[in-house]
Amino acid sequence: MASLTCRLEHSVKPDALRSYLAEFISAFFFVFAAVGSAMASRKMVPDAATDPSTLVAIAIANAFALSVAVYISANISGGHVNPAVTFGMVHVPTNEISQEMTGFGASVLEGVMTFALVYTFYAARDPRHGPFGAIGPLTIGFIVGANVLASGPFTGGSMNPACSFGSALVGGSFKNQAVYWVGPLIGAALAGTLYDHVVFPGQMPGLADRGGF
Amino acid sequence: MASLTCRLEHSVKPDALRSYLAEFISAFFFVFAAVGSAMASRKMVPDAATDPSTLVAIAIANAFALSVAVYISANISGGHVNPAVTFGMVHVPTNEISQEMTGFGASVLEGVMTFALVYTFYAARDPRHGPFGAIGPLTIGFIVGANVLASGPFTGGSMNPACSFGSALVGGSFKNQAVYWVGPLIGAALAGTLYDHVVFPGQMPGLADRGGF
Amino acid sequence: MASLTCRLEHSVKPDALRSYLAEFISAFFFVFAAVGSAMASRKMVPDAATDPSTLVAIAIANAFALSVAVYISANISGGHVNPAVTFGMVHVPTNEISQEMTGFGASVLEGVMTFALVYTFYAARDPRHGPFGAIGPLTIGFIVGANVLASGPFTGGSMNPACSFGSALVGGSFKNQAVYWVGPLIGAALAGTLYDHVVFPGQMPGLADRGGF
Amino acid sequence: MASLTCRLEHSVKPDALRSYLAEFISAFFFVFAAVGSAMASRKMVPDAATDPSTLVAIAIANAFALSVAVYISANISGGHVNPAVTFGMVHVPTNEISQEMTGFGASVLEGVMTFALVYTFYAARDPRHGPFGAIGPLTIGFIVGANVLASGPFTGGSMNPACSFGSALVGGSFKNQAVYWVGPLIGAALAGTLYDHVVFPGQMPGLADRGGF
Repeated sequence: MASLTCRLEHSVKPDALRSYLAEFISAFFFVFAAVGSAMASRKMVPDAATDPSTLVAIAIANAFALSVAVYISANISGGHVNPAVTFGMVHVPTNEISQEMTGFGASVLEGVMTFALVYTFYAARDPRHGPFGAIGPLTIGFIVGANVLASGPFTGGSMNPACSFGSALVGGSFKNQAVYWVGPLIGAALAGTLYDHVVFPGQMPGLADRGGF
Repeated sequence: MASLTCRLEHSVKPDALRSYLAEFISAFFFVFAAVGSAMASRKMVPDAATDPSTLVAIAIANAFALSVAVYISANISGGHVNPAVTFGMVHVPTNEISQEMTGFGASVLEGVMTFALVYTFYAARDPRHGPFGAIGPLTIGFIVGANVLASGPFTGGSMNPACSFGSALVGGSFKNQAVYWVGPLIGAALAGTLYDHVVFPGQMPGLADRGGF
Repeated sequence: MASLTCRLEHSVKPDALRSYLAEFISAFFFVFAAVGSAMASRKMVPDAATDPSTLVAIAIANAFALSVAVYISANISGGHVNPAVTFGMVHVPTNEISQEMTGFGASVLEGVMTFALVYTFYAARDPRHGPFGAIGPLTIGFIVGANVLASGPFTGGSMNPACSFGSALVGGSFKNQAVYWVGPLIGAALAGTLYDHVVFPGQMPGLADRGGF
Repeated sequence: MASLTCRLEHSVKPDALRSYLAEFISAFFFVFAAVGSAMASRKMVPDAATDPSTLVAIAIANAFALSVAVYISANISGGHVNPAVTFGMVHVPTNEISQEMTGFGASVLEGVMTFALVYTFYAARDPRHGPFGAIGPLTIGFIVGANVLASGPFTGGSMNPACSFGSALVGGSFKNQAVYWVGPLIGAALAGTLYDHVVFPGQMPGLADRGGF
């Protein structure tokens, strides 16, 4: 009980509020570039689904912007907010499932990609990477860029249920919603559990709080 | 008064002159690649506005060249000149507002991108990034690359009033000049204030002078 | 004999099993992006052999995903498994030899690229790179990306016999198999020997075990 | 005299021979990717001069391969051979001057790009970059990538007289040779002089020998 009150007080302190703002700004940078590049591509090539240049443009915008977004909030905000969740919630809302994919296949694909994203997040905040630690933010951007290139024409590379839900709400069409919920939620949970408890156990929380993001 | 005289003397000392030259060279590298890639794209595809490959080429040239430009002047010149201003003054002078955009919308878009650029500059020179500090120059290049990909077909991704003014002066057409002045100036001022005083206060100037760029 | 028993016991200890899982996950990330981007490109542009955008998309997906795959298993798993072998075994199974190439030429080309990949692996795990060590994982991804761009339309950039054999087995066509066996095996053996014993001898195995991947 | 004998003896010692081999291998990786990507692009799109995707493919191959080439020979070989010269001697031998360019303009363009390349080389081997030092090899690759994107359709982005001379010798056409000699030689000499003696003087040679490449 004391712990809960303490947490509540903690969450409205100036430090925490600054962390929220820092997270919001970095999330905003990523959403801006991801959604903006998708809109720009669609403006230049209306039938973007058959143009690999468009896919390259969107993938690079995602990779670059996410690297920057992770970097600018890393090592400073104190780790109050988990960016894996924040960024997970804001991915490109431009998913279209191709006709060749079944709903189950698309869900598995989204789940695998969410697994890759969250697993890389855990790896990048791990202080045990020694000399390679410096490029952690780049790896998070790169895995999203690679996944967008791999899944673009199939499911759109959402990697997030909340955002797909939001764009479905706006568009008024809830078809195939389950695709973006079942797979990613299983993938994300599996990634965190595997990294912290199975593959690389023994991570000291104190270190992660100090050096992670 | 003594301080002013001291500053004047300081600004013509060999150290300061060398800093000016270092800044000029790195700014020149960036302008060369940014303007050159825009000209090269236009030469290959006259109707570049509908070709995403062109946008990718320009965005990568911007990202690579700005990363290099920040790197070659970082940590050496002593921080006499603020590269955020220098680079801000030299961005690609090839802005065309698409017909779908209102002037206000374009101004907001330019302001948001300038905010992202300046905010990332402040983050990249912050010595508190610990192990991730090494990739600071890359993040500045990446945010510009991502923003060019996101805004290319809409406003051209100027992020700078002075340069747009200059190219308008040469071209003799001052239409839509306000777009490139109002938004970016507000965005840049907001980014600096937010970073240094609201989100990450308590930065010691001495540290920034020693380790920043 | 004691040494062999010791090794066998060692290979089923929890530590070793975790290393296997870590290697499997990172190899999976790379295969997913490499094969996925090849499939995505083929879906968008059926005649992908004449479209440079497709090649760029596949090369970037390879480069980004391999950088991440090396990073997430580096410096932690303890070096029980050699990723040069693991990654070598999973490269893109989409090789088609162009009609201009003789079998011998293709084999030489594949051998040269395998040499470059394995040599870079050895360089990236070398703890003597000092300040540049941080970007080791990136260099491995970059050399594969560059090689895919250089060899894509000629041999497909396999760099691996096992994978070509597997895809031939599935496809039922063993034509030109020797191409993907002779060159790469010679190239890989030559690279390891050259790096460790001729060009940069005197590497202490203890250091490589501690700091490499 | 003693010094000369000493140097001669030094240049055939095992250490020096190993350095030559290390330089040869890394130079070979770069030439392979640069020339290979140019050939691959020409195979896919015979009229490559009007296709920006081709330019992106070549620029990325150059940037990635040069970053790797610098990395694998850095900090180990002891600095006997200056890679700025080595790499400068092996750039893409596929220069075609567009018809809009005068010979003088092309020479100036080549000179400016050679200046940027050599200046960045000097900056990347400077041990005074502190935390940013880690990305030195990347910056050299990036400046070449950006310059290829900027100059591709105009002069081909040679940045080197020896290589242009070689390809002219093979092709039997010495037209416009001066373009690739006058500008680059002036640019390279100017870059080295400016960096070491004007902009950032006081670099201790001992440091450069120990930590540079």
